[in-house]
Amino acid sequence: MEDFGQKTWQSIQALRKKRPLIHHITNMVVMNTTANATLAIGASPVMAHSPDEVEEMVSFAGALVLNIGTPTRELVHSMIKAGQRANQLSIPVVLDPVGVGATSLRTTQALRILEEVKVEVIRGNPAEILSLGGERGSIKGVESFQEATEAVEVAISLAAKLSTTLAVTGKEDFVTNRYRSVWVSNGHPLLKLVTGTGCMATTVVAAFATVDPDPLSAAATALGYFGLAGEKGAQTSDSPGSFQVALFDALYDLTEQEVGKGIRIGEHR
Amino acid sequence: MEDFGQKTWQSIQALRKKRPLIHHITNMVVMNTTANATLAIGASPVMAHSPDEVEEMVSFAGALVLNIGTPTRELVHSMIKAGQRANQLSIPVVLDPVGVGATSLRTTQALRILEEVKVEVIRGNPAEILSLGGERGSIKGVESFQEATEAVEVAISLAAKLSTTLAVTGKEDFVTNRYRSVWVSNGHPLLKLVTGTGCMATTVVAAFATVDPDPLSAAATALGYFGLAGEKGAQTSDSPGSFQVALFDALYDLTEQEVGKGIRIGEHR
Amino acid sequence: MEDFGQKTWQSIQALRKKRPLIHHITNMVVMNTTANATLAIGASPVMAHSPDEVEEMVSFAGALVLNIGTPTRELVHSMIKAGQRANQLSIPVVLDPVGVGATSLRTTQALRILEEVKVEVIRGNPAEILSLGGERGSIKGVESFQEATEAVEVAISLAAKLSTTLAVTGKEDFVTNRYRSVWVSNGHPLLKLVTGTGCMATTVVAAFATVDPDPLSAAATALGYFGLAGEKGAQTSDSPGSFQVALFDALYDLTEQEVGKGIRIGEHR
Repeated sequence: MEDFGQKTWQSIQALRKKRPLIHHITNMVVMNTTANATLAIGASPVMAHSPDEVEEMVSFAGALVLNIGTPTRELVHSMIKAGQRANQLSIPVVLDPVGVGATSLRTTQALRILEEVKVEVIRGNPAEILSLGGERGSIKGVESFQEATEAVEVAISLAAKLSTTLAVTGKEDFVTNRYRSVWVSNGHPLLKLVTGTGCMATTVVAAFATVDPDPLSAAATALGYFGLAGEKGAQTSDSPGSFQVALFDALYDLTEQEVGKGIRIGEHR
Repeated sequence: MEDFGQKTWQSIQALRKKRPLIHHITNMVVMNTTANATLAIGASPVMAHSPDEVEEMVSFAGALVLNIGTPTRELVHSMIKAGQRANQLSIPVVLDPVGVGATSLRTTQALRILEEVKVEVIRGNPAEILSLGGERGSIKGVESFQEATEAVEVAISLAAKLSTTLAVTGKEDFVTNRYRSVWVSNGHPLLKLVTGTGCMATTVVAAFATVDPDPLSAAATALGYFGLAGEKGAQTSDSPGSFQVALFDALYDLTEQEVGKGIRIGEHR
Repeated sequence: MEDFGQKTWQSIQALRKKRPLIHHITNMVVMNTTANATLAIGASPVMAHSPDEVEEMVSFAGALVLNIGTPTRELVHSMIKAGQRANQLSIPVVLDPVGVGATSLRTTQALRILEEVKVEVIRGNPAEILSLGGERGSIKGVESFQEATEAVEVAISLAAKLSTTLAVTGKEDFVTNRYRSVWVSNGHPLLKLVTGTGCMATTVVAAFATVDPDPLSAAATALGYFGLAGEKGAQTSDSPGSFQVALFDALYDLTEQEVGKGIRIGEHR
């Protein structure tokens, strides 16, 4: 059995050595906090969305994050330009389909991105993944009321259809590439009380994808690391303001021992 | 006499049970912090401004916040589309006319929104409310140098003219629906040292409006609750960085007893 | 020899008395944190970028910040309108050429601003300043891997060519107006682990420029003050989440004694 704790720590060490640039075309709510999450884990963020520069910018990047949290047609146009250039350069693209299923704009734009760009990992909540799979999830705005267990079959079949890795996050996270699936059981309920923690998790997945060639392992260990940082943050705080601060601290200072003992990833059977 | 402390606590309890979606079309400075304020009080935020989705998104919402802090004509177009749909669905709309009076763009766009959309509550500082009432307030950028006492008459006459509730916030807050007016004397000077606390107060007003059918009481208790959270935050911090963290914590963890004893709302005579 | 510690404290005192408005046309990542930095040092922020209001808004301002961190052609159009109006009114303009040299959009737009607007101070990292000077810096996204020592000659010749003050920030900061140059050795490595600290430094430079008529001294003392706040923040925190909170606190509560003893600015020889 793979030692995911060790693999997680190897990825963090590699990130801090390489400091890869993570190019984000993301929503306006989380630009600051995902940039800080990127820095805290040892990578380097850039936010750039003008159609006049995204192809050039992504060429310096180790990975590209596309996040449709505050979508407009212009922004999606930039996402596709950047994504296609990333594909040409074999730079991994990670998609966060925020709120897909809530409005037809989000659904059509997410599907459009998936048609035009080869995406290495999609990270979403259960309702978003169900929506992408053509099922009506009970989405309310950008929140989901399902658990990942309800999206297992849809995720596996989407992974097959799109030849990609799906990461469905909830109380437990389900990650699948069709052939292999794992469960990540790190995390803490306080993460739901801070805006953009899903988007931060996507950022961490993108960063791990720059140093781990296996998207399934990259996504699972990234979600494990992010969830473990949430657990550590919750040890010093039980309210959302101070918890967010402690989360950024933990993303930066989780130790090898904490990671080795704390990462809980297991095979799906 | 109404027990506003009890009413405040009832609203908070109802929010945490219902977790209503608060749709924001707001400025780029406060998107993250107002989303976090929404989560801290128990509601659920969504920020969406594309004209292609705002009507659909608002239909899931318990309330709509329109905030002109970084206005453009396109954004105001989306605000009017969303606001008119909210009106059709009887979803309360709360307007924050940030910086109105400072530039003619802000003044004309705020007045345009008020012509096209039925607004349930307007929350602004004294200079903004004076400007909306056609008086020249001494506004400097987005700050006000008047106190709410100077805007009492204008607020009452605007409430009558627009058939709405006006909430004028300052050292003390004045809330009026023309027929009845109250003063809220919760708050703390440190709130002026954190950007977007006025916008957060507006968000809390919108959330309270989803569970309290009386806009005057909703606005007054929301401002009381927000101000009390500021007072609690200031007990553990006297500098703006740590105060902002403590404010988010307090929005989340004020107790029934603290609210019962701490809310200070009285009739205007 | 000039007492820069005393001068720094005088500027802070003057800011808190005058509370000048600092108009920002800036990037979407740092709008919230630069607004909070502005408030913490005693000034008053406004973020406004619509071409329909920037000329009116800047007329109330003590200084104008132009920051191209998330550039679009429309935004640069607004920057030039605001900058030209500021020039007419003798309001100092400070430019932060974020990521210039990384993409041709950033390079051409920064040069366009410098052609159309008289800029009082340019604050950038070594790679950005080298790029502005026509040299290829090794820029990766928006980060620089050079130290200010490598950009001394280019900075002096740019200061001459543009008749402006250049502030090159790194481990140590180099500030020059061609005729006189100084080194600022305040700062802390944790500042590189929080997004937007360069942008915040630019904001502080703009604020100091409203109360100090000498751009070189304004820029140097502002960078000294900001760096010293970083040092103070690092005394209570060694991880990026809590460090950012401590940084905002320190920007607000550095004492006269701490400033008098802590500012380290010396002549370049």
